[in-house]
Amino acid sequence: MAGKLYGIGVGPGDTGLMTLRAKEVLEGCGVIAYPVKRPGEGSVALDIIKPVVDISEKSIEEFLFSMDPDDSVRERCRAEALDKMCMLLDNGEDIAMVTLGDVGVYSTYMYIDRDIRARGYETEVIPGIPSFCHGAALAGIPLMIGNEGLAIVPVAKENSRLLEDALDNFDNIVVMKAFKSIGMILDMMESKGIPADRATVVSNVGMEGEYVGPMVRDRDYGYFTTVIIKKKG
Amino acid sequence: MAGKLYGIGVGPGDTGLMTLRAKEVLEGCGVIAYPVKRPGEGSVALDIIKPVVDISEKSIEEFLFSMDPDDSVRERCRAEALDKMCMLLDNGEDIAMVTLGDVGVYSTYMYIDRDIRARGYETEVIPGIPSFCHGAALAGIPLMIGNEGLAIVPVAKENSRLLEDALDNFDNIVVMKAFKSIGMILDMMESKGIPADRATVVSNVGMEGEYVGPMVRDRDYGYFTTVIIKKKG
Repeated sequence: MAGKLYGIGVGPGDTGLMTLRAKEVLEGCGVIAYPVKRPGEGSVALDIIKPVVDISEKSIEEFLFSMDPDDSVRERCRAEALDKMCMLLDNGEDIAMVTLGDVGVYSTYMYIDRDIRARGYETEVIPGIPSFCHGAALAGIPLMIGNEGLAIVPVAKENSRLLEDALDNFDNIVVMKAFKSIGMILDMMESKGIPADRATVVSNVGMEGEYVGPMVRDRDYGYFTTVIIKKKG
Repeated sequence: MAGKLYGIGVGPGDTGLMTLRAKEVLEGCGVIAYPVKRPGEGSVALDIIKPVVDISEKSIEEFLFSMDPDDSVRERCRAEALDKMCMLLDNGEDIAMVTLGDVGVYSTYMYIDRDIRARGYETEVIPGIPSFCHGAALAGIPLMIGNEGLAIVPVAKENSRLLEDALDNFDNIVVMKAFKSIGMILDMMESKGIPADRATVVSNVGMEGEYVGPMVRDRDYGYFTTVIIKKKG
């Protein structure tokens, strides 16, 4: 019988924030898989599971999903990864592919899931704690209450209009990938009359340069930086 | 030494979606607390933990947070709950308050946390899987990818403008508390030229009336109904 593919969100970085189900499935699978953009780059998601899942007897497989600008390179790479996965499944192996945070939040796993299902195999997605939930918990603030909405916007050049719109219309805004854009976000808040103290920065949690606190313009922030803005305070 | 208060997100309903940290803290606390709006109404969050946490030796405490329209009733109720909590903490008890889903998503726990910290006690928030992450996982769709944003909007009379705005500006929209509003959401999508098949309904997961599938206008949906709309398909 063919094996099954599991896409597993292992949470935002703290091993304790993995789910019981994630641990159970990881223990039951013979193959632990992780996606990489470059060969040999390693996997933070894999590091997260190691303290609680004994992987010594398991086959640990890297799957390359290139981000090469050349479409044909990316497609060949993807086809090779899928073929290798199907070969393992045909051998009866259950595969657990680990992914940081939640599987539905900026993860490429869902495409792999769709393609593997399209080839006739069974799959299952196991959600994980998204980084913004962890960030709000660490900052001691709710993401939203009552009938409030929440906008989650990644900083990107083409998104400045989306961030403007979110600041205009939503009570609560999570700005992701914000590490180089604190000044821009502060400027935008100021132009809309939103006081700077309505924002909390959650940066590099559990890593070097960890910071949870108010927005400070001239400060270096780590790569994993999220800003939570609550317009009502 | 005074005890510590933990606010614990136990996830969206499936015991397996609790985190390892939630289980560990629940096992270590002498008091398991849960908030109610009416005396004796029970707690879904408490039911979720029972299969994996032995609560037979623990003190299980209901805390009443009234939703009475009379401000003075609500405030008295809240003060009594906080006083009782502080008494337990002063006795050296660690208290784990359980809450459905994530603590930051429509939970009153964060106010309790703030008030208890203001009284000088130590607290810790442990995030949980939000229902919309579980919903997306069950439906086999990503919440967002690349540089896309996500808007989370609860259906409420005063929010129809917010939902309109989200449908206009965001690629991905999660509509919460949608059980009586499927027709309204369909109408709004239609008026904006968003095909109905871009929406997936996730309803009453793990309960009677479970449904994960396309939006159907003339169908009864359970109380726990979320709609995930992906404009790009």
